[in-house]
Amino acid sequence: MRTRRTTTDRDGDPAAVFETFLSQATRRVDAALNRHLPKEKKRPPLIHRAMRYTALSEGKRLRPALVLLAHQASGGKSKAAEDVAAAVEMVHAFSLIHDDLPAMDDDAMRRGKPSNHVVFGEGVAILAGDGLLTLAFQTLAGTRRALGSDKVALLIDELCRATGPEGVIGGQVLDLLSEGKKVPLSVVEYIHRHKTAKLFMASLRLGGIAAGARAARLQKLERYGEDLGTAFQIVDDILGAAGSFRELGRDPGRDVERGKVTYPSVMGLTAAHRAVDRLLARAGREADGFGTYAPQFRGVLSLLDQRRRDADGRPAGVA
Amino acid sequence: MRTRRTTTDRDGDPAAVFETFLSQATRRVDAALNRHLPKEKKRPPLIHRAMRYTALSEGKRLRPALVLLAHQASGGKSKAAEDVAAAVEMVHAFSLIHDDLPAMDDDAMRRGKPSNHVVFGEGVAILAGDGLLTLAFQTLAGTRRALGSDKVALLIDELCRATGPEGVIGGQVLDLLSEGKKVPLSVVEYIHRHKTAKLFMASLRLGGIAAGARAARLQKLERYGEDLGTAFQIVDDILGAAGSFRELGRDPGRDVERGKVTYPSVMGLTAAHRAVDRLLARAGREADGFGTYAPQFRGVLSLLDQRRRDADGRPAGVA
Repeated sequence: MRTRRTTTDRDGDPAAVFETFLSQATRRVDAALNRHLPKEKKRPPLIHRAMRYTALSEGKRLRPALVLLAHQASGGKSKAAEDVAAAVEMVHAFSLIHDDLPAMDDDAMRRGKPSNHVVFGEGVAILAGDGLLTLAFQTLAGTRRALGSDKVALLIDELCRATGPEGVIGGQVLDLLSEGKKVPLSVVEYIHRHKTAKLFMASLRLGGIAAGARAARLQKLERYGEDLGTAFQIVDDILGAAGSFRELGRDPGRDVERGKVTYPSVMGLTAAHRAVDRLLARAGREADGFGTYAPQFRGVLSLLDQRRRDADGRPAGVA
Repeated sequence: MRTRRTTTDRDGDPAAVFETFLSQATRRVDAALNRHLPKEKKRPPLIHRAMRYTALSEGKRLRPALVLLAHQASGGKSKAAEDVAAAVEMVHAFSLIHDDLPAMDDDAMRRGKPSNHVVFGEGVAILAGDGLLTLAFQTLAGTRRALGSDKVALLIDELCRATGPEGVIGGQVLDLLSEGKKVPLSVVEYIHRHKTAKLFMASLRLGGIAAGARAARLQKLERYGEDLGTAFQIVDDILGAAGSFRELGRDPGRDVERGKVTYPSVMGLTAAHRAVDRLLARAGREADGFGTYAPQFRGVLSLLDQRRRDADGRPAGVA
């Protein structure tokens, strides 16, 4: 989502407001990841190298930035929010490594580099994913002094649900089983809700929980996260069909080649764009509810909209 | 570790004391697993079937039984100890599924049945392992009302460390990288300490933590678990070299075929037996420190010793 823009663009541009936040967040999250990931020299070094290779590779860090944004917008001031954000990025990195495996999506490129299993071999890649998943929960458990054990138990429960069979992992199963098949829209929606939207929803809720936000605020954050996450996935599908390697960090056209279930493949490209328009519009109204932080929440949506526009030259929709 | 014995054997036999405990523990643990594992019919059913296939397949349930034993011996009375025990068994089942994958040890049989990936395919098996790992931590987070959040944070931290790159996963990496190589004894010890002993140590500590045990008691439990876990792995290696399919639940001779690093392959069968003798003797002395529960702790060791004796007709060592 880093687009080439001049500094003059930034004045009054909602995307620029969030871009500034995002670049600061990326630095904080990467520093936290670096603190928590085992040092490369530690025995056995190969798995630690493999874990770092994907977790610290250039990425958008959008999910952890949303943790920090939701935390700040909910009045949270704890530095431990960075650890919570790092835990979310670890889960995301775990899912990238396992999704790219030959037994899954069989993708040789990720984030502009060879995939984890291409560099380290399948066995080590599987274990590096396992290691990142475990370290995510260990990192959350480690915030007990800063945040208190009550919050820690809630944070872990939340991230487990977003990750497990009722979240990311469940979505990936259905994705795997649907490959090359003709499936109804409801299955596409299920896959994307679970594979992508759930971790966005959790990211926003986790930031809120760490700040001690109440149920009503958590629900607001969750609704925004659901619309944003779904829009994000549809845009990703659109780029997968039409985007370039640079924008995607992996091979475009690979989805079609593998017979992957995507929004454009099931509903067509125009309808997919219209769905993004609707989701961004609704998320925009939700963003307005976040007071002084509304511009940041709107900025996330503008940035996503811009990414879509940059890819195919199509005029941007609302939001 | 279930051996064929007549009921008259049981009187005054230390192994029989623990066998009774073990069979009750197995029922309680399986009931807890059944409660926590997603129902088969829940969408997407295939991953839930795959998770249940391995987690509920016939096994010794030794690790979760040790959780319950340590909990009871530390004065714990909470039924939530069953959930903690189930979480340990989920981690164990996760490690079995991932270890058996073609990219790892490539074992087609496990616990007397075709391995998870043979039945469900590699992709689903990887995800079923991921799902069990996640559910283990979710299950621990779910004990917060019964045990209190402070204990939950400690339990999760403990299980993460035993599972992650400094535990089971780290051991598996070195195991994978050592295959077919000539390695010194120190590497064999590292692999087995991490792949096996750490989860035994954690099982005993988790039971103690759930009961609110203090540091000194936890260290005692850990020392016993370390000697027991190491002895268990050496016996497993001995059976792998000399045992039958019935005792092992998987193909004997497979270790040699794959060039796996085992105690007998590095130090010879006689020295491996002597190492077991020494460990069981020391664990026996540690068992004496558990007051009225000493017979149970000694019984675990007798049962292991018996398993080894049954396999190769060699006279049993001490303990």
